[in-house]
Amino acid sequence: MPKIVDHGARRDLIARAFAAHVAELGFSATTYARTAAATGYSVGTIQHYFGSRDELAQAAFDRLLADRDARISDVVAAGEAEEQPIRAILRRAVTELLPMDEARRREHRVTLWLRVEGQHDPTLARIASGSDADLHRRVAQAVVNGTRCGEVEPRVDPAVAASMVLATVHGLALELASGGGPAAEEVLDPVLATVFTGRCRHHDV
Amino acid sequence: MPKIVDHGARRDLIARAFAAHVAELGFSATTYARTAAATGYSVGTIQHYFGSRDELAQAAFDRLLADRDARISDVVAAGEAEEQPIRAILRRAVTELLPMDEARRREHRVTLWLRVEGQHDPTLARIASGSDADLHRRVAQAVVNGTRCGEVEPRVDPAVAASMVLATVHGLALELASGGGPAAEEVLDPVLATVFTGRCRHHDV
Repeated sequence: MPKIVDHGARRDLIARAFAAHVAELGFSATTYARTAAATGYSVGTIQHYFGSRDELAQAAFDRLLADRDARISDVVAAGEAEEQPIRAILRRAVTELLPMDEARRREHRVTLWLRVEGQHDPTLARIASGSDADLHRRVAQAVVNGTRCGEVEPRVDPAVAASMVLATVHGLALELASGGGPAAEEVLDPVLATVFTGRCRHHDV
Repeated sequence: MPKIVDHGARRDLIARAFAAHVAELGFSATTYARTAAATGYSVGTIQHYFGSRDELAQAAFDRLLADRDARISDVVAAGEAEEQPIRAILRRAVTELLPMDEARRREHRVTLWLRVEGQHDPTLARIASGSDADLHRRVAQAVVNGTRCGEVEPRVDPAVAASMVLATVHGLALELASGGGPAAEEVLDPVLATVFTGRCRHHDV
């Protein structure tokens, strides 16, 4: 019987190994050879899946952001299932972006590399800005939902509110990453409170 | 007559040339040789001033941050001379951190490199966190001054308020750097308004 190879799973494994090395060693020090050593595959096998280091790097960043998005979606789905207020769900969702444990610290380091490499690489810049735009769209949608249920005043501009919330989250992430900053909620809560000023009507019934 | 050499000015010139290349090409691509070519000095002359690339990189980041601090101090001094409210002075000061023109975009790119390289280099991490701590101290002091003159409620914690303002500024800078984001004041003003809720008594006399 021929061996059944799950090529998608292999690609993910290799992409995640590359990202893990970026988190640990930095982008420039992360090579095909190191990635191969970590996965147990030969350099040739890795080249079979990713024709160039650029292609592998793009896949690694894509994979990491997709994993992060999936985690955020899980948090949102759980909050909705528990019928939490939108503000509480959003707070839990954006907290996933903060480097508050080792896994999220590593993830944040990789996203910072994506940003900085994107300054000089248009493809990586597109990955970074695509992810930013997607986050922004999701937070703006939460604000729209908040307007509908009464947690947010109708005069609030969802795009501006989303930019404000995400600016605070991204900046707080930088503060936490460099080992400083106060408790996250002390920074996050007053900013969320400027947007979410009301109470969801669904919770009054 | 012996030629009088201003060694301090030469060091600054070389450090600024290194930082300019970091902004343009990225950190890894910035070398002694490129810096030498840009300054007109030989590699040997540059090595006379900076014994290693690490030492040159540290001086370049230090120089850039010192230039930024000096610019902020000028803005603050001008605002104080015009007897502006503290909130308005702080707003102008932190706007200096935002990549809103080419000079500040280049500066922001270099500070982002400092952050990301600091993830793997303790000396650069110290330069980054020293600069963050200094900014934080200055913003916290502005909040304390605001409490004294009536612009800020006495119950506001200056350290937390400073973290919130700086988180918003740093995150907004990331948004602007990747070409997105709304007008800066739309994000910044509501956050400043949560801290600066009152009116300076000095402006009522």
